[in-house]
Amino acid sequence: MATDSLRLYGAIDLGGTKLRSIVADGGGRILGKDLRPSQSQDGLDVVLERMVESLDASVAAAEVEAARLRGLGIASAGAVDAVRGIVPGAPQLPGWDDVPLARILEERTGLPTRLENDATAAALGEHRFGGGRGSRYMLYITMSTGVGGGIIIDGEMYGGKSGAAGELGHVVLDMNGPPCGCGARGCLESLASGTAIAEKGEQLLDNGKSPILARLRAENGPVTAEMMHRAADLGDNASREVFREAGHYFGVALASYVNIFDPEVIVVGGGVAKAGDLFLDQARVTMEDRAMAQPLKGVRLIRSELGDFGGTLGMVARMAEAEEGRA
Amino acid sequence: MATDSLRLYGAIDLGGTKLRSIVADGGGRILGKDLRPSQSQDGLDVVLERMVESLDASVAAAEVEAARLRGLGIASAGAVDAVRGIVPGAPQLPGWDDVPLARILEERTGLPTRLENDATAAALGEHRFGGGRGSRYMLYITMSTGVGGGIIIDGEMYGGKSGAAGELGHVVLDMNGPPCGCGARGCLESLASGTAIAEKGEQLLDNGKSPILARLRAENGPVTAEMMHRAADLGDNASREVFREAGHYFGVALASYVNIFDPEVIVVGGGVAKAGDLFLDQARVTMEDRAMAQPLKGVRLIRSELGDFGGTLGMVARMAEAEEGRA
Repeated sequence: MATDSLRLYGAIDLGGTKLRSIVADGGGRILGKDLRPSQSQDGLDVVLERMVESLDASVAAAEVEAARLRGLGIASAGAVDAVRGIVPGAPQLPGWDDVPLARILEERTGLPTRLENDATAAALGEHRFGGGRGSRYMLYITMSTGVGGGIIIDGEMYGGKSGAAGELGHVVLDMNGPPCGCGARGCLESLASGTAIAEKGEQLLDNGKSPILARLRAENGPVTAEMMHRAADLGDNASREVFREAGHYFGVALASYVNIFDPEVIVVGGGVAKAGDLFLDQARVTMEDRAMAQPLKGVRLIRSELGDFGGTLGMVARMAEAEEGRA
Repeated sequence: MATDSLRLYGAIDLGGTKLRSIVADGGGRILGKDLRPSQSQDGLDVVLERMVESLDASVAAAEVEAARLRGLGIASAGAVDAVRGIVPGAPQLPGWDDVPLARILEERTGLPTRLENDATAAALGEHRFGGGRGSRYMLYITMSTGVGGGIIIDGEMYGGKSGAAGELGHVVLDMNGPPCGCGARGCLESLASGTAIAEKGEQLLDNGKSPILARLRAENGPVTAEMMHRAADLGDNASREVFREAGHYFGVALASYVNIFDPEVIVVGGGVAKAGDLFLDQARVTMEDRAMAQPLKGVRLIRSELGDFGGTLGMVARMAEAEEGRA
């Protein structure tokens, strides 16, 4: 058994609605896990309590002693200050304001703790343990409520001058397009995120174009991208067209990434990418149609291999490498 | 005197219309230079002849012995295969087809010879000897007939998996916009290059909107970006508006670059950027309006310091560092 599989780490992925934790060894093998609501609307103290509870549950599930953990990694929604371990605040985490999350959890758990943005962590996870293994130049994009990204160059995370690099959801596709949450217009996120897809679903209903979606909405409440996916599966052509169109937008963005980075592999995660082949197939067609020939040659466009565990496994890699003096 | 200023190198910048050469020391001090038409329409042999003649002229101007040169660097228009030293062909170089330019010139001059794309070389030049000195994360964009770019990460050129990275002119701004030479639509190059600006000038004439430009055109032939610049200087408001609009397009692209790279410094070269402050001032306003707050903080957007000598000085840096075993 390699050394790193004897070393155990805890990791927590903190989202606005869900909180996931794992205990894993340095080789990325998950020994125990837990998933619970983050109840972020209840404020900071409740969320902190739940994070510690979830980690305890993962330790129990792993059937190891808590004292064996060598570190704790946090993958958090929203922008983070990874260097200082601070969450400046995020729409998904109401009431959080410059929270020194790494220090707080270090004090509560006694474990060396590091913090990263969740998309950054997932990029690292996919590179170390997923579809990007062994690549020098990898891009990771998560298509979910928002669109996040991470860039691997020479096998390491690329952070830029302030650690804020990799906002691949905020490349412009249509400069006069719809307003984006970032303040600009027509970014990928404003056109092809889960939120954008759900909004287009609501418009389909306004137009009376989609009886299947209308029934699902009557039964389940407001349209979500997941609901649109179900409607598409049930034969709703208008919903299918929304996913195809979102895939086209994504393909245009992919072409820009290819021309800029000449990458080996592009890993796509998040709920939108999980929604059937329609989205990613169209994205591939558009990318191949629009990208320049030389950098396009040999690009692998693949789905996330780690799925919901990208962020936590990425933080396990981060902690393990920090111990080995690599990060 | 530092060691590298005793070492002399030759460098040639090969464009479709002009051919520039220098002799410089490893510290970037130019000792001799030459500029002549490349006469690329006369075909490969004539151009090769002129390259050697121009280098000889630079050596003579430097008043050094040719035998003192330690290497020759070529910055070439169009895509190049830098690893094998081959020019696969470029619109600016009619009749060139997989020309092993580095090997040919090595045989003719007896000097170790390296080849790079001209924008890549200029990016390196600006980083080693220009406004990007000392930065870890620098972007270079040249706004000229076409739009080229180069990316410096951790102080070194970023090439991607096949050396084709850095096509910053081919990020999309308006996915349903005008066709671009790369095959896609609405790239920065299709909207704000010198070619795009000249086309908008011709349209101004069609609309009868610009008497000053009409007079310049009657005197000098087809509209160029340079002619538009003269018209703008002479008070032609429609021409001014074209530069302002091009600056806005460029600013939208800059915002995408900032969100992706979180760079320290962005260096802008090329004829369009030289055309008065209107273009770059508007680009800055739009970039600051559209980019995300954290990566925008502290970005320096500056003009090229090396001007027309970026490509040749970049190749001098490349040759000097190759000797020192850095590249």
